[in-house]
Amino acid sequence: MEEFEVTPWEVRGKVDYEKLIKIFGTEKITEEILERIRRLAGGELHVLLRRGVFFSHRDLDKVLDDYEKGNGFFLYTGRGPSGPMHIGHLIPFILTKWLQDRFDVNVYIMITDDEKFLDEEKMSLEEASKWAYENTLDIIAVGFNPDKTFIFHDTEYIGKMYPLALKIAKKINYNLVKAVFGFSGSTNIGLIFYPALQIVPTFFERRRCLIPAAIDQDPYWRIQRDLAESFGYYKAAAIHSKFLPPLTGFEGKMSTSRPETAIFLSDDSKTVRNKIMRYAFSGGQPTIELHRKLGGNPDIDVSFQWLKMLFEPNDKVLSEIEESYRSGRMLTGELKEYLINKINEFLEIHRANREKAKEILHVYKYEGKLARKMWESPFT
Amino acid sequence: MEEFEVTPWEVRGKVDYEKLIKIFGTEKITEEILERIRRLAGGELHVLLRRGVFFSHRDLDKVLDDYEKGNGFFLYTGRGPSGPMHIGHLIPFILTKWLQDRFDVNVYIMITDDEKFLDEEKMSLEEASKWAYENTLDIIAVGFNPDKTFIFHDTEYIGKMYPLALKIAKKINYNLVKAVFGFSGSTNIGLIFYPALQIVPTFFERRRCLIPAAIDQDPYWRIQRDLAESFGYYKAAAIHSKFLPPLTGFEGKMSTSRPETAIFLSDDSKTVRNKIMRYAFSGGQPTIELHRKLGGNPDIDVSFQWLKMLFEPNDKVLSEIEESYRSGRMLTGELKEYLINKINEFLEIHRANREKAKEILHVYKYEGKLARKMWESPFT
Repeated sequence: MEEFEVTPWEVRGKVDYEKLIKIFGTEKITEEILERIRRLAGGELHVLLRRGVFFSHRDLDKVLDDYEKGNGFFLYTGRGPSGPMHIGHLIPFILTKWLQDRFDVNVYIMITDDEKFLDEEKMSLEEASKWAYENTLDIIAVGFNPDKTFIFHDTEYIGKMYPLALKIAKKINYNLVKAVFGFSGSTNIGLIFYPALQIVPTFFERRRCLIPAAIDQDPYWRIQRDLAESFGYYKAAAIHSKFLPPLTGFEGKMSTSRPETAIFLSDDSKTVRNKIMRYAFSGGQPTIELHRKLGGNPDIDVSFQWLKMLFEPNDKVLSEIEESYRSGRMLTGELKEYLINKINEFLEIHRANREKAKEILHVYKYEGKLARKMWESPFT
Repeated sequence: MEEFEVTPWEVRGKVDYEKLIKIFGTEKITEEILERIRRLAGGELHVLLRRGVFFSHRDLDKVLDDYEKGNGFFLYTGRGPSGPMHIGHLIPFILTKWLQDRFDVNVYIMITDDEKFLDEEKMSLEEASKWAYENTLDIIAVGFNPDKTFIFHDTEYIGKMYPLALKIAKKINYNLVKAVFGFSGSTNIGLIFYPALQIVPTFFERRRCLIPAAIDQDPYWRIQRDLAESFGYYKAAAIHSKFLPPLTGFEGKMSTSRPETAIFLSDDSKTVRNKIMRYAFSGGQPTIELHRKLGGNPDIDVSFQWLKMLFEPNDKVLSEIEESYRSGRMLTGELKEYLINKINEFLEIHRANREKAKEILHVYKYEGKLARKMWESPFT
């Protein structure tokens, strides 16, 4: 049995997602739930749902109940701006945008410059602010509805959140955060307070809050769910994604500190090609002859998994690739070439959107309909 | 040997101030220092200095050095708005105003509505805000220079303070606040973070900060002094007051939860009379005959001590009263009568000033010269 660990600050080992559902006490996303979403959303399911990248949830069924009853819901997700964003970081945002489009709901995006500054020994607050700006551009590039999306940096929006953060903080003692997050005597007092702040946006509306996020963020929502009803709000619902596997294999998650594990949104087409050709862990055979004879194994091939998880939404094409690779007709180099083209197409569009984002940043942060409301009137 | 304890949240027993200087590692305010203040301030020393109510300090000599060199300094004090203010609460403000007048320096007054909410089980944030407003009126009534004084409520001013609070918080771990404040596993995470915030105003200017406060607040400044220079700021200097003894005797300090121990700023003249006649601990004899024969003991007489500490600034008059009481010529009732009149005169003026404070509150908080600067531009 392999060992693994998933916390908001570390993902170690090869994650067993079935086991994680048991450990975290969440629910599996079943075919029934997917079918309900398909029906309510109209049209085809997003590939991230169809292919099981989002695999676990809390109260997603209740979110759909609320939607059916006309009570609606809202979406909340975020980003810790510790450095440049890679493709894995976009996953929750891509699903969030799809859910916003299909259900026409508000989206709140928290940029936790405070937490990253507090958590990373060597990061200055000025650096965290710089990344907050850069990452916000990448997030805007995903294409959220500018009048129904509010993006805020903690250090800028703290004034509005602080009273509610205090009320939450008063209900959370050190023993609890020690147990949930593994804090110790050497943890700084900013980081100890921070969980109260991350919970605040789940109370931005008196409706159910649905949080698309990687599963490592779940501990925050466990605390939220214990407190929410005593404040007269809903327990947060969540939909949890797997980690897009690192290029180098299935251990841990993509890491900014090891650039060979990840494709960054800023990587140019040549860098993408080099990284994938050089590092993408292959399920192919050591020689072409053996590969033709024995075939490749798409289940352990990172390039294939990336296509499956995000970059090849066409089911028919994907299954042809799978068949072709498994049979040995398609070589590793050809599979990688296919992925490289898909990623570079994706990044080209992303970069164009990111340039436009500079012009409309102020809409998401200050001047859009939702942003204006969030700056003008208290949300409680 | 009597036991006593002094923390920011509790004062228990009869405080031995000489011992406290040793325990806290502060300096005694010597005649030499008083003489320097007298010379630099010009004119007579304030009664609170002359009579030793402020008895201990840190780096007060350096503050005076800085002033002599023309570098100046600034004053910082505050109030935890947990309820109505009594006369004891005014002591740091009275000295702060005197120092501002004599040295013509800026004063920053922090109203810690957040801390009081976090610290007191039953207090709502709305209640803490209400007391923040009420207490601010009492503080303004002391008569600070409206263009050189900034009064701020934490929950309103957090937006400006948060970045610096984060930088401070990152340098303070749980073990430290546990050791300094006695925090435990059941302490809420808001209170654990709070010390970072109380330190922020000591960095409002790149000059030495002098903090007039009751000595129970000293632990915050010990942490500040360990950190300040690594941030490029000065170690905070402090000047510590004794507690005005409770009416009922010399144990602990005046308490809002036991109204018989204190004279509140809102007490009317009849209440003042009743409380002092009824509760003020007397150093007199059980009968008039015995008193005339043996005399009273002003050293343990609360009414006399209040006159000495604050209400009778005239040294000649005070020593006549002392002599007269000690000799038995003055009876306890007469001594109390004298104090009652002094307090009621003081409160009558205070109440009038407090009414006017309602009209000029906005100057101290938002529109005075210093207040405007503090809202407009960051202080770092």
